[in-house]
Amino acid sequence: MYLEDLEVGMRFGGQRFAVDREEMVAFARQWDPRPIHLDDAAGAAAGFGGVIASGAYTSAILTRLTAEARKQAGDHAVIAALGSKQRLPHAVRPGDVLEYRAEITGKRNSRSRSDAGVLETRSTLTNQDRVVVFEAESVVLVERR
Amino acid sequence: MYLEDLEVGMRFGGQRFAVDREEMVAFARQWDPRPIHLDDAAGAAAGFGGVIASGAYTSAILTRLTAEARKQAGDHAVIAALGSKQRLPHAVRPGDVLEYRAEITGKRNSRSRSDAGVLETRSTLTNQDRVVVFEAESVVLVERR
Repeated sequence: MYLEDLEVGMRFGGQRFAVDREEMVAFARQWDPRPIHLDDAAGAAAGFGGVIASGAYTSAILTRLTAEARKQAGDHAVIAALGSKQRLPHAVRPGDVLEYRAEITGKRNSRSRSDAGVLETRSTLTNQDRVVVFEAESVVLVERR
Repeated sequence: MYLEDLEVGMRFGGQRFAVDREEMVAFARQWDPRPIHLDDAAGAAAGFGGVIASGAYTSAILTRLTAEARKQAGDHAVIAALGSKQRLPHAVRPGDVLEYRAEITGKRNSRSRSDAGVLETRSTLTNQDRVVVFEAESVVLVERR
């Protein structure tokens, strides 16, 4: 799917990811080894009732579900990610099942590349209780036909 | 270091991370399996001259160097990350050595918690050619004394 095929208001999503405690903690050990991301006691002491995911882990999950959604919808001709704005309104815990949803919120020509355009997407991860745990507004460069 | 110990204008940094090709590609295989993040030919075909890192990987590196910097400066009493804004102005490649720098850019009371405050930090990763490859403005909740 090239820039011409993608329009503001188009929606993607439904992809899911089950958060595995071991994987979640192993990710934190490597990339964000703060106690609240490593064990239940530290998470409880900080008022979270147990271990919670690193934001970097949840962000990686969003990236993976975005890739899956784009593949299912017909591959987007994404050249590169330019940036994003992320909010973490609610903790992610082992056993959570996160569901991805996204909507195209903006589309414009690239100032620097006549063969590409800029696409803005708003995406969310929602847990099994329908609470939004992650929100992102991301900007990517997409090929023209 | 509690909210009272952290002031606008304080700087941290100097931590470095060498990007290993195998680790970079393994991360992409799990979290962002787009061809440009997996092999040189696809990266070259897309105009990048070879394989480039997933933004999720670079973001994880920033998270890790932030944790290291906070540990070196005296542990920050961070309760939770609330969000961030990230820009990816330049590609990251195998062999790059990324250097972390950060500055506290804002500090305010929390509206919802009298025992905590909100800290804003601007951080960058710069490569060995002094090119900024990643920029983040992040917002975290920090304990008061």
